[in-house]
Amino acid sequence: MKENLVWDSLIHDVSLLPLPHRAHFIEKGWLAIRGPEILALGEGDPPPHPAKKRINGTGCVAMPGLINAHLHAPMALFRGLADDLPLKTWLEKHIFPAEEKWVNGEFVYWGTLLACAEMLRSGTTTFCDGYFFEDQAARAALQSGMRGLLAQGILDFPTPDSPSPHESIKRIKSFIRDYSGSDLIKPAIFAHTVYTCSPPLLQECRSLADRYGVPLITHLSETRSEVQEVMKKYGRRPLDHLENIGLLSSPLIACHCVWLTEEEMDLLARREVRVVHNPESNMKLASGVAPVPDLLARGVAVGLGTDGCVSNNNLDLFQEMDSAAKLHKVHRLDPTVMPSQTVLEMATLGGARVLGMEKEIGSLEAGKKADVIVLELNRPHLQPVYNLVSHLVYSATGADVRDVIIDGKPVMENRKLLTLDEEEILGKAGEWGRKIRPISDCRFRIAD
Amino acid sequence: MKENLVWDSLIHDVSLLPLPHRAHFIEKGWLAIRGPEILALGEGDPPPHPAKKRINGTGCVAMPGLINAHLHAPMALFRGLADDLPLKTWLEKHIFPAEEKWVNGEFVYWGTLLACAEMLRSGTTTFCDGYFFEDQAARAALQSGMRGLLAQGILDFPTPDSPSPHESIKRIKSFIRDYSGSDLIKPAIFAHTVYTCSPPLLQECRSLADRYGVPLITHLSETRSEVQEVMKKYGRRPLDHLENIGLLSSPLIACHCVWLTEEEMDLLARREVRVVHNPESNMKLASGVAPVPDLLARGVAVGLGTDGCVSNNNLDLFQEMDSAAKLHKVHRLDPTVMPSQTVLEMATLGGARVLGMEKEIGSLEAGKKADVIVLELNRPHLQPVYNLVSHLVYSATGADVRDVIIDGKPVMENRKLLTLDEEEILGKAGEWGRKIRPISDCRFRIAD
Repeated sequence: MKENLVWDSLIHDVSLLPLPHRAHFIEKGWLAIRGPEILALGEGDPPPHPAKKRINGTGCVAMPGLINAHLHAPMALFRGLADDLPLKTWLEKHIFPAEEKWVNGEFVYWGTLLACAEMLRSGTTTFCDGYFFEDQAARAALQSGMRGLLAQGILDFPTPDSPSPHESIKRIKSFIRDYSGSDLIKPAIFAHTVYTCSPPLLQECRSLADRYGVPLITHLSETRSEVQEVMKKYGRRPLDHLENIGLLSSPLIACHCVWLTEEEMDLLARREVRVVHNPESNMKLASGVAPVPDLLARGVAVGLGTDGCVSNNNLDLFQEMDSAAKLHKVHRLDPTVMPSQTVLEMATLGGARVLGMEKEIGSLEAGKKADVIVLELNRPHLQPVYNLVSHLVYSATGADVRDVIIDGKPVMENRKLLTLDEEEILGKAGEWGRKIRPISDCRFRIAD
Repeated sequence: MKENLVWDSLIHDVSLLPLPHRAHFIEKGWLAIRGPEILALGEGDPPPHPAKKRINGTGCVAMPGLINAHLHAPMALFRGLADDLPLKTWLEKHIFPAEEKWVNGEFVYWGTLLACAEMLRSGTTTFCDGYFFEDQAARAALQSGMRGLLAQGILDFPTPDSPSPHESIKRIKSFIRDYSGSDLIKPAIFAHTVYTCSPPLLQECRSLADRYGVPLITHLSETRSEVQEVMKKYGRRPLDHLENIGLLSSPLIACHCVWLTEEEMDLLARREVRVVHNPESNMKLASGVAPVPDLLARGVAVGLGTDGCVSNNNLDLFQEMDSAAKLHKVHRLDPTVMPSQTVLEMATLGGARVLGMEKEIGSLEAGKKADVIVLELNRPHLQPVYNLVSHLVYSATGADVRDVIIDGKPVMENRKLLTLDEEEILGKAGEWGRKIRPISDCRFRIAD
């Protein structure tokens, strides 16, 4: 510990859950931050040392900030626009037309700000986004102070930000160049799916990703009909198809992975494909149940994601952990699968591994980035405490988060957002909502 | 409207969702309360009329208080004591021994107060409890101002409050007599299960329930092993067994109903058995998925419950609605089943029907009891609003509830509980926790 410099922040008299993968925590401890990093942490009273900011954690727990490993942040502005519909109707009559009509740079900027406000309030400090106009998502993320792996989207077709895949490639390149030096924002490529991206396009994305050293992200085997479609078109299941066209030569971040065979799971493990599990989206869209326990048993890196707000419909990873733990139990009729510890690890270190950031974030350790959240435990739904991890997974929600620190900087304090003008964001969200669906169409008629 | 008397409370400038079973709401309206009842409600500005209390609902929605149709409230003190274990180990090595050792009148009183504090904070205004020392649960519920159908438990065996079923029967009788005149507390009988209550005991409960005109409640067909055990013992499935011994001669409240055949569902409908669905408990304990859409299609009254805190582990019905809507979709691979409207109705009017209180509660209508909750919508996770019901089911949590009125009386105002000393309750919960599992056993070791 470099004792000679003043600490930037000290959290004291706090319960500490430093390592989500270890079965112990510190009942009363302290954590010191200098610059963007955790300098030291320990049990009992902190050593006497000057600190610019002292945060009293009495009755609270400090833990690593949560990592939302897959979402489409700007879609927060479409939250609740269409639900409970057949998948094809939902996509083709509601979501795609809404995207075509409304998604532009301003939409992405304000939608991402809204999503960041929600994520910060619910204890998420890092998010992995995939959408269009990703430069505007980055602008919003930077403003919020969040850490992000932000991926510019591409498909075979014209998208809201590009008239052709060729233009999307240009956007990808300039986005990567613009953000390659950023501390908090890492750029990536989001190739939508194997059925909306041709093999040559996917191969181009692969070589771009390798050339720039950025992650490649895709949706994979989310629905049964996707698998059938890809089988019909390419004569192989989606993952085999990717292997066949050389896409798995470097690690890939594959979101969903619901419909996998045993052989595909072996291949995923062998090729070190990183997987993001989105249980609530898979439930709400009736996609199916991903074989996450089998992936974990094979040592696959699995993170947790909320997916976008149109298919969830919130970004609260505490609720997502609860759903992840419970869904697999009932699906396998086995209450021992996906214990709370496993799920908490998935939402922290697991996500960090998926994003390639496990040396920086995902746990509270000296030398790691200071991405820390503080939750109040002195609430009726969190007492008494027998097992802190159980409480975080099964009893807490994002609303229990009191303080958020990212990269050493306080971004929420006593539930007040410090980096964002929440009132302005809510006002803009309301404006977008009224524009997207006029009041006459929805306010007095809540179901079609 | 009796215009000549001063109103007790007026909620104004509020969005109103008066009838959860109708597809419309009032964007800006008002609701007037006098005594325990809703006097009137309407659109726009309220008529000029004196009111003792004016509640500004700008940016909020007022809706019927939620109804938790099945739980074991005092078990809040065991929250998180044991999770992720095989069912038999969980019950026989953890829950039953803890109950045997710790459950007494004081436990039930403080546990129920803790549960009431949590329920009020998350917008539940009525609960249906089944446990022991139910007089102490009633004492706590009365203090909280909540409405309750409280059922004294009975089994073939000695229980924490009675050395024999004979003593339990005495307890049931005196409990019913003590609370038969209460406005807010209605007594009932909770016969644990068909495999822990002999046919003569169940028949005695049935005739007591009929004689006193109180509901009879039981757990039914919760697990596959229960069905197998009952088949082995009585040669019939649980519901057939109940029919055979005359238990379905009057309506029964049957909790869980996970493992039902088509014939059993027909019988449930014919005998007007009322069902309580507990999706999160059924998920966490890996019991299975109740065929709720099929029950609803048959016109069976279905309410929503959280079950006790050892198998959920919270009492937040907003999260429970979310889980209910999503679980059935993924289970049937059909995103159209259990739409948000159906789930919201289950947590309000459905629960009221199950408890036999549908003329009094479950919707906001003039003449009904004033059980009203007010939620703030001006939060990042609830904007923009396209479909209010979707937001309540898929995006909100109990933490969005700002005000709670029960039987016309404000019990929570601006998130402050008015009827309960929350600090004292949290302190007592902590004391119980430290007594039940000493700090040396759990604070530094969060998993066994």
